[in-house]
Amino acid sequence: MISFAGGLPAPASFPDLSTAAVPRELLQYGASEGEPELRLRIWRELADAGLVCAPEQVLVLSGSQQGIDLVAKMCVDQGTAVALESPGYLAALQVFRFFGARFITLDPDRPQQLLQAPERPALCYVVPTFQNPTGRCHTAAQRERLAHTCMTGGITLFEDDPYRDLVYEPCDLQPVCSHMTSGSWIYQGSFSKTFAPGLRLGFLACSPDLLPYVTRLKQAADLHSNRLSQHLVLQQLQHPHHAQRLMNLRAHYKARRDHFAATLHHALTPYAEWHIPPGGLFFWLRLKTPVDTQALLQRAIAQGVAFMPGEPFFHQPPQDRRNYLRLNFSHASEEETEVGLRILADLLDACISEQPR
Amino acid sequence: MISFAGGLPAPASFPDLSTAAVPRELLQYGASEGEPELRLRIWRELADAGLVCAPEQVLVLSGSQQGIDLVAKMCVDQGTAVALESPGYLAALQVFRFFGARFITLDPDRPQQLLQAPERPALCYVVPTFQNPTGRCHTAAQRERLAHTCMTGGITLFEDDPYRDLVYEPCDLQPVCSHMTSGSWIYQGSFSKTFAPGLRLGFLACSPDLLPYVTRLKQAADLHSNRLSQHLVLQQLQHPHHAQRLMNLRAHYKARRDHFAATLHHALTPYAEWHIPPGGLFFWLRLKTPVDTQALLQRAIAQGVAFMPGEPFFHQPPQDRRNYLRLNFSHASEEETEVGLRILADLLDACISEQPR
Repeated sequence: MISFAGGLPAPASFPDLSTAAVPRELLQYGASEGEPELRLRIWRELADAGLVCAPEQVLVLSGSQQGIDLVAKMCVDQGTAVALESPGYLAALQVFRFFGARFITLDPDRPQQLLQAPERPALCYVVPTFQNPTGRCHTAAQRERLAHTCMTGGITLFEDDPYRDLVYEPCDLQPVCSHMTSGSWIYQGSFSKTFAPGLRLGFLACSPDLLPYVTRLKQAADLHSNRLSQHLVLQQLQHPHHAQRLMNLRAHYKARRDHFAATLHHALTPYAEWHIPPGGLFFWLRLKTPVDTQALLQRAIAQGVAFMPGEPFFHQPPQDRRNYLRLNFSHASEEETEVGLRILADLLDACISEQPR
Repeated sequence: MISFAGGLPAPASFPDLSTAAVPRELLQYGASEGEPELRLRIWRELADAGLVCAPEQVLVLSGSQQGIDLVAKMCVDQGTAVALESPGYLAALQVFRFFGARFITLDPDRPQQLLQAPERPALCYVVPTFQNPTGRCHTAAQRERLAHTCMTGGITLFEDDPYRDLVYEPCDLQPVCSHMTSGSWIYQGSFSKTFAPGLRLGFLACSPDLLPYVTRLKQAADLHSNRLSQHLVLQQLQHPHHAQRLMNLRAHYKARRDHFAATLHHALTPYAEWHIPPGGLFFWLRLKTPVDTQALLQRAIAQGVAFMPGEPFFHQPPQDRRNYLRLNFSHASEEETEVGLRILADLLDACISEQPR
């Protein structure tokens, strides 16, 4: 199977790990907040990114999916209004929906519209940097405006930032939360994209008012995160070659993206349009001629190619919801990409020619 | 600090992690259900314990605390009636309470009373084997009666079984869920007590009707459990010395328990009464003369001794809720135990003599 479906990092990007000298005390129960040394290290990286807080405001998570679950538990009850972009991150939509959220669309160019909504949202969830699925990156002005809106409106800002290290073009990367000089906010990041998803490790920082609640919810969810993973990630972060490793990773993914863009251009120009994402892991395609993307997926899978139809990323399906595909470019090899996109192009051609005129 | 407070395993019980080379494929995203080989191994151990199910019914958890969170999400809404023993496991009480549970007391001798309760419970949570905090073990008759009640009443049975391998006297250990020939059930276990809590790994098995819901909730909670931990635990389970290691662990804890019991007898007989637990990690003491156990705790901490007051284990605090202490015997050394229990005895003596007659 050639998979453009998931957000899987390239296996070649994984660091070498050895558990040969794991301190035995790591096998005992640990702190719900995370290992102190790792929290300090994350705190310093956040400060370098422009997000100034106290080290105590940093919590280690069992992957950033856990952060979505904890924040939903804290902020979302039956009927709570939650603002987010449309399309938006599928797995966040699912969790918010489970806790009973009603969704309001956030327009990054006009966040102040949220203040005029019939019911003001309690929470605003946003992936401002290389959004999943669109790959878009918010501008500095958009970031400031969103923070200002949340502060003015008493809206809790939840910023999910798993892709910030996968940057291929100059972009504003400053956390929206760093513009929150008052109010409630949660910022979260992940080690899955730059280190290894199999170790399930992420982190969050939040405003002091939320800290006791998030900490208690983290404890109730799984007591604490895996201490061996925390040890291994800290070792990697402290490794003298860490910065070089990230640079290599970016160069590797940028080359993948460029090859994917060239192959897309060659194979799919008649059928779809897209922007070249300045970072992250995905191309977001809009089909020029509408096609049943679920039917397309079934036919693609039968020929050994997987992708994500765009529909489930929309919380309120727009008229043209069936016209989108999300394609991951980090996992398939260059050869697989060429074969896979050729198959997709042929299938699109077939689907369109089969349609009644 | 001499701690009798937590349920910390003895560090000497931790296995050696001697895996120089971590298979690189484990660093990628994995299955929400867990690693197939580990699930199969757990399934076989469950069958040996008398719980027959299909391998697909087994899910790996990020510690058994996660199982409580998932089951609460699945079964408990605002006002849902949940039956459990009183006293019962503190961290489960907290999670059920968070999701809005109302509590009904389960009497293990008369579970059929649940069928006559004004509102029949939707869920029954039970730790039948070396319960936390009391250390009690349900008899075979109690187990059968409880399963029968749940089947008859359409009550989902949630059996939490983290201590079954820490057995020091002959006891019935057969899972209550193995008596559920119909109806809905969840059985969960932990690797924290026999392997290493820092790796945060547990598992559950459930009836087929619940499986799709639990699996989706697991995915929404943290995508999947740590793959490195799963690899390490599987290696330990498959190790030729695994059975011998468990026997050594039981012998070690039994000796600790016996020493703790002798020291308790020597130091605390005038002040408290208790049963000797046939398994698990705790003594549960009832004070002969009521004392403010929170005030006692503050004075004990000032002298370097920690324990758990009994009160938070009661969902409906009984009249004598302040008369209980939970003491862990697995973590403090023999010398610490002697010093710590002497300090507790002196403090109890002081508290009682200060009380107005």
